[in-house]
Amino acid sequence: MPKPPLPPELDEFLAHPHPAVIATLEPDGTPHTAATWYVWDDGRVLVNMAATRKRLEHLHNDPRVSITVIAADDWYRHVTLRGRIVTLEDDEDLSGIDRLSRRYMGDRYSARDQRRVNGWIEVEHWHAWVHGEAWRPEAA
Amino acid sequence: MPKPPLPPELDEFLAHPHPAVIATLEPDGTPHTAATWYVWDDGRVLVNMAATRKRLEHLHNDPRVSITVIAADDWYRHVTLRGRIVTLEDDEDLSGIDRLSRRYMGDRYSARDQRRVNGWIEVEHWHAWVHGEAWRPEAA
Repeated sequence: MPKPPLPPELDEFLAHPHPAVIATLEPDGTPHTAATWYVWDDGRVLVNMAATRKRLEHLHNDPRVSITVIAADDWYRHVTLRGRIVTLEDDEDLSGIDRLSRRYMGDRYSARDQRRVNGWIEVEHWHAWVHGEAWRPEAA
Repeated sequence: MPKPPLPPELDEFLAHPHPAVIATLEPDGTPHTAATWYVWDDGRVLVNMAATRKRLEHLHNDPRVSITVIAADDWYRHVTLRGRIVTLEDDEDLSGIDRLSRRYMGDRYSARDQRRVNGWIEVEHWHAWVHGEAWRPEAA
């Protein structure tokens, strides 16, 4: 499975706000999946969770994650990023969730009374598919 | 987290061919995610893989899976099904992949020379979200 950096074409793909699903691990190792917003930021991935999410406990316990990002306009184009959460930090001023919300919804996050947490994922491996074939654009 | 059976409204949702992502576990417990076709068949989930997929080995090793199904026309509506693969069997006549392909593409699967495998998932828990809130329609 290829390692970062990603080819520019996949960087460009991930720069758009596509639907995505993140897998985390429960304490007994059971996989857990959930739809998520993400930001692709120069090779790292930002996600954000309400501080009450079970997922947050799981990530403190085991930081391994996998995210599959599906093209909004063509489900048969998707990129999976695998790695670990290297930073979990309180999103005290909600700037993290606002960044995600502006990207996906065009405006800051509507709920202002939640405690939220930013998670930064360091990507260790990736793979990409396009219409059933490996999607491996040439590196620049 | 609620257990099956699912409310009729979620049955109805899952009856449509939405994009979905499945998480499986590598031998060392690392989560692996991939986009997948699925069929919701009276409370069980059918998925199908090329016999060469690493995912297949993983499932023999550890049958625990989680699938998040995202509404094709509204990403903010999604259902997660968690459970385990209870059956893995050769799709000798390709009737399994054809069933999936007809559902998603409207026709039988184009590649006829692949060995493929059906996996049946028994759902143990589910949860559903709609626009940031739990989606728990009343049982009928």
